[in-house]
Amino acid sequence: MFDDYETLDVFGPAEIFGRLVDQYSLKFYSLEGGVVTNRHKVPIMTEKFETMGNGPKIILVPGGMGTRKEVNNPQLLDKIEELSQTSDYVLSVCTGSALLAKSGLLDGKKATSNKRAFSWVVSQNSEVDWDKKARWKVDGKYYTSSGVSAGMDMALGFLADRHGIDFARKVAKEIEYNWIEDKDNDNFVAE
Amino acid sequence: MFDDYETLDVFGPAEIFGRLVDQYSLKFYSLEGGVVTNRHKVPIMTEKFETMGNGPKIILVPGGMGTRKEVNNPQLLDKIEELSQTSDYVLSVCTGSALLAKSGLLDGKKATSNKRAFSWVVSQNSEVDWDKKARWKVDGKYYTSSGVSAGMDMALGFLADRHGIDFARKVAKEIEYNWIEDKDNDNFVAE
Repeated sequence: MFDDYETLDVFGPAEIFGRLVDQYSLKFYSLEGGVVTNRHKVPIMTEKFETMGNGPKIILVPGGMGTRKEVNNPQLLDKIEELSQTSDYVLSVCTGSALLAKSGLLDGKKATSNKRAFSWVVSQNSEVDWDKKARWKVDGKYYTSSGVSAGMDMALGFLADRHGIDFARKVAKEIEYNWIEDKDNDNFVAE
Repeated sequence: MFDDYETLDVFGPAEIFGRLVDQYSLKFYSLEGGVVTNRHKVPIMTEKFETMGNGPKIILVPGGMGTRKEVNNPQLLDKIEELSQTSDYVLSVCTGSALLAKSGLLDGKKATSNKRAFSWVVSQNSEVDWDKKARWKVDGKYYTSSGVSAGMDMALGFLADRHGIDFARKVAKEIEYNWIEDKDNDNFVAE
């Protein structure tokens, strides 16, 4: 977490992973720990990265206007890189992929991002194989999604890849969510 | 907010209202103030209800498993009733309508709720005109929605009623959300 994160980038996937208490356990981290908030005024309590254990983990990096500042924050980028190297999976939503790209983690990999901020994201690192059509993109352990709500579609796609499509559909139904299952075609691609 | 609220019930609408910084300003309240969390382990910082100002306001009551306990918490129900009487609009998501119903606020009014918990919600108060087909229901200043994701559809419907359908569609597009515009037919109604 960082200042001025996008609300649903975080809490859409948090609903999906959070309810699976037998498979996943959520924790929120930031550089300083304590309350992190955003322009939406959503104050979430976090812990310092240093308190993170060494067990298997999945990292999710949200987007939001705060990424415009954080792409110039080497302390955060270094931490994202370090944690990503030791994580089983690395997920980003919206412009969160700009942070992954800037840290070099996506070099030579396929990735996507928010279609409304696409040129800015691409400008962070041209070594990434950017896909501007995808709702979400998978390359090895990296999952990157398009804007905001697309993070929920990606989270369900991640569940489908790990636990099967029926499992993912059951979760979508439980939260009464019309899951967009097609990861390759984002219907919000700008004309 | 109350213990064991449903994550997306809160943060779906929070994304939608929160981004409209010229029209709305979010605040999170609870009986005790401080950090409130849930079984998803999402810790949100809240203030005590007593710190709320007297200006115009909209109340949103989330659902979640915590409502099973809170329907028996007269302190919270009294506070919801008191605040609702002085609010311009009262919104609930999922089983949040059970709390409104139990407090008597929905007597003689049309309302809906989560379709998977419908009989439990109805059992809280039979004086409510419960609609088990609606995605969300509007009766005067009361907006009640079906489960979890339906809160986002209702929040966009609320914006459409206040600011016009084009405004609501623009917000949905900004967050790359496929808004379900039909409030009368929830496609998650149990067979």
